[in-house]
Amino acid sequence: MKRMIEQGPRVVIVGAGFGGLLAARALRRAPVQVTVVDRYNHHLFQPLLYQVATSVLSPGDITAPIRRVLRSPNTRVLLTEAHSVDTQRKVLVCDAGELPYDVLVLATGATHSYFGHPEWAEHAPGLKTVDDALEIRRRVLLAFEAAEREPDPVRQQEWLTFVVIGGGATGVELAGALADLTHITLRKEFRRIDPTSARILLIEGLPRVLTAFPEQLSERARRDLQKRGVEVWTGAMVTGVDAQGVQVGDKRIQAHTMLWGAGVAASPLMRSLGMPLDKAGRLKVEPTLTAPGREDIYVIGDVASLQQDGHPVPGVAPAAMQMGKHVARNIRRQVKGQPLLPFRYKDKGSFAVIGRGAAVGVTLRQKLKLTGWSAYLGWAGIHVFFLIGFRNRVSVMLEWLYYFLTKRREVRLITGGVHHELPAIAPLPSEATRAQQEAPAH
Amino acid sequence: MKRMIEQGPRVVIVGAGFGGLLAARALRRAPVQVTVVDRYNHHLFQPLLYQVATSVLSPGDITAPIRRVLRSPNTRVLLTEAHSVDTQRKVLVCDAGELPYDVLVLATGATHSYFGHPEWAEHAPGLKTVDDALEIRRRVLLAFEAAEREPDPVRQQEWLTFVVIGGGATGVELAGALADLTHITLRKEFRRIDPTSARILLIEGLPRVLTAFPEQLSERARRDLQKRGVEVWTGAMVTGVDAQGVQVGDKRIQAHTMLWGAGVAASPLMRSLGMPLDKAGRLKVEPTLTAPGREDIYVIGDVASLQQDGHPVPGVAPAAMQMGKHVARNIRRQVKGQPLLPFRYKDKGSFAVIGRGAAVGVTLRQKLKLTGWSAYLGWAGIHVFFLIGFRNRVSVMLEWLYYFLTKRREVRLITGGVHHELPAIAPLPSEATRAQQEAPAH
Repeated sequence: MKRMIEQGPRVVIVGAGFGGLLAARALRRAPVQVTVVDRYNHHLFQPLLYQVATSVLSPGDITAPIRRVLRSPNTRVLLTEAHSVDTQRKVLVCDAGELPYDVLVLATGATHSYFGHPEWAEHAPGLKTVDDALEIRRRVLLAFEAAEREPDPVRQQEWLTFVVIGGGATGVELAGALADLTHITLRKEFRRIDPTSARILLIEGLPRVLTAFPEQLSERARRDLQKRGVEVWTGAMVTGVDAQGVQVGDKRIQAHTMLWGAGVAASPLMRSLGMPLDKAGRLKVEPTLTAPGREDIYVIGDVASLQQDGHPVPGVAPAAMQMGKHVARNIRRQVKGQPLLPFRYKDKGSFAVIGRGAAVGVTLRQKLKLTGWSAYLGWAGIHVFFLIGFRNRVSVMLEWLYYFLTKRREVRLITGGVHHELPAIAPLPSEATRAQQEAPAH
Repeated sequence: MKRMIEQGPRVVIVGAGFGGLLAARALRRAPVQVTVVDRYNHHLFQPLLYQVATSVLSPGDITAPIRRVLRSPNTRVLLTEAHSVDTQRKVLVCDAGELPYDVLVLATGATHSYFGHPEWAEHAPGLKTVDDALEIRRRVLLAFEAAEREPDPVRQQEWLTFVVIGGGATGVELAGALADLTHITLRKEFRRIDPTSARILLIEGLPRVLTAFPEQLSERARRDLQKRGVEVWTGAMVTGVDAQGVQVGDKRIQAHTMLWGAGVAASPLMRSLGMPLDKAGRLKVEPTLTAPGREDIYVIGDVASLQQDGHPVPGVAPAAMQMGKHVARNIRRQVKGQPLLPFRYKDKGSFAVIGRGAAVGVTLRQKLKLTGWSAYLGWAGIHVFFLIGFRNRVSVMLEWLYYFLTKRREVRLITGGVHHELPAIAPLPSEATRAQQEAPAH
């Protein structure tokens, strides 16, 4: 045990994602008492979560215990869910108690948005938490097991149909990884089904995928996906999702496995501030990253909306990390009685992966566009570099090396019970033949 | 896809644990059609499962997809649960269909036994599957989080009390690993509680722990556990388990985290054979490993009871593996019309770990007794050697090396939701003081 240093203003940070974690780390020697609140006990490196969902990495490879990362004597970590902020009394209300603050940092991130159709969520899970990734992994792996057991060829094909909704980075990465999983890894492992006949659809409402990237890279991503056998539907609006498939305008796709990468909305905690939010539920912050008119509340990452040079600062990990560090700087200044500094986002580039050896990326102020292997290696290097902790870096690199050399995805664990209704076992073909041959004898 | 070779007798193997997996592997070039049935999609290296439960290893480190291990063209793998055997019709009845067999191999292993108190199971989970280990990990990690939030010192101590019931290898390994977790890994990570004050009890009904080992090693294990702060109660019968603790005779232990390592019983599938079973639900097999009077049913591993030289063959992994290989040999002989051979168990020794650098072991026909570091290194070497798959061997060795050098247990993930009722948040001590100071002013 380390006793806490009990001096200085109480800084309460809500959320230990990229923004919150970096703010807390940058305050570890500041003359303040930091409390970090999160509903999970681990920090998650979300950009690699799709690799947990598709059996390349283990959850432990891309997470770190928040307590271990933030073990400075001025910091305590509490596992609890924050429900609301009482700005009058300066108190954060959590699921089992209240935390008074002098300075509050809201870094609670985004959640899925189903465009007013919350009933779609159970059929098309999204990918934000470790539990989400394990659920997706379970559904994808079970679908192949169910198909192998299914005697009816039509129903078999339904089990082998995977629909990814949303053509942003998450959707593209999931669709590409599913293609590699089915066409490379599982190719030889079944007796009745041909995993390479799996149908993978990526559905995007806008005219192109990866709209955050230049058009030319969207085109390249589409071609790379198609080369891998992914059907890319753009300008296609999903109008219905149920347990048996997806409705896209007048087209019906029968499927058992739907994944959601389409909409995000700011965490609902923001609503309790009683301040006007934008359509996505975010708060428009001052350039100093404080809430309008309140220097005791900082809002960063995916819950903040900020314009810079006429463009919105994007809701990506590097922006959240830079904001977290900036907030720590401003809090130190506040303690010294200095005025707050405005934040400036430095765009160092961004990448999206399609699959083994295929990615797109822009860097150097959008001047350098990368595709194929160069983008893939750039992406891999940056992601390993920014992982929290030496152990995670080594283990992710080794898992990638192994996957790279063998094409095997080994973390193919179905855990958490069999929720799907799996079909009846079909007899072996020879058994069917035998039964037919024996039938006349009766 | 690999089409299945459809020739030869149909061999159905139920269970892909050590016995079933080794039988199937040894039949991969035999002139038979093999079907392997398991309710999980992965083979599990059970002897290291306690390290998943105590945050050293990830589930992916000690599992391998059954399909990938058994991808020979004469073998198919089905994810399904077997319910009963119809020995008249020679059919295995599964949860969603029937599988006819010419030869049946029952290798379904053991499950927990709560000595006629199934209601204890929810309070004191056992450790047999990956889901079990994740549940234990979740409960143990949540207990520390709850204690950190708990203002009342008595209730705090209840959260910090861990009771392991059963002093066999599983119980000893869990208790020792909990001691290392609390006293080494978590030592500095909390602000309010002192993890080293956690109370860990190991309760065994017989007069000593590790009764499968010579008395002298039991004594050593007890001393090693006590050195680590574990209270070892022997000759102590548990008479009650509920959500708030354990009753041991007239003694009551208040606790929130109870783990079960006491009783095992053969899988319930055995009852459907309609043959007399022993008290633990196992079938007494012929020396050839077949069911009495039936050369078409083999029974191996933890569901088989076999005497050899006046001693029972123990229910351990090496025995199951040797039996699996022997069954494959006998099936090959059956196909050729040769008589079956009797099985002989070769005891190569056994080990139990207490913690970092502490273990006990016997080998060379029980003549060589090992303790401390030599036993620990012997245990580690053997376990890495017998892990299925090169990747698992490398990743387990690296995780151990990391843990060894840093004493960090990094896979400290709480997943699957917060089922426990966690206590309210206590204020910071300074907040409490401040509140007291402010109180008179009102």
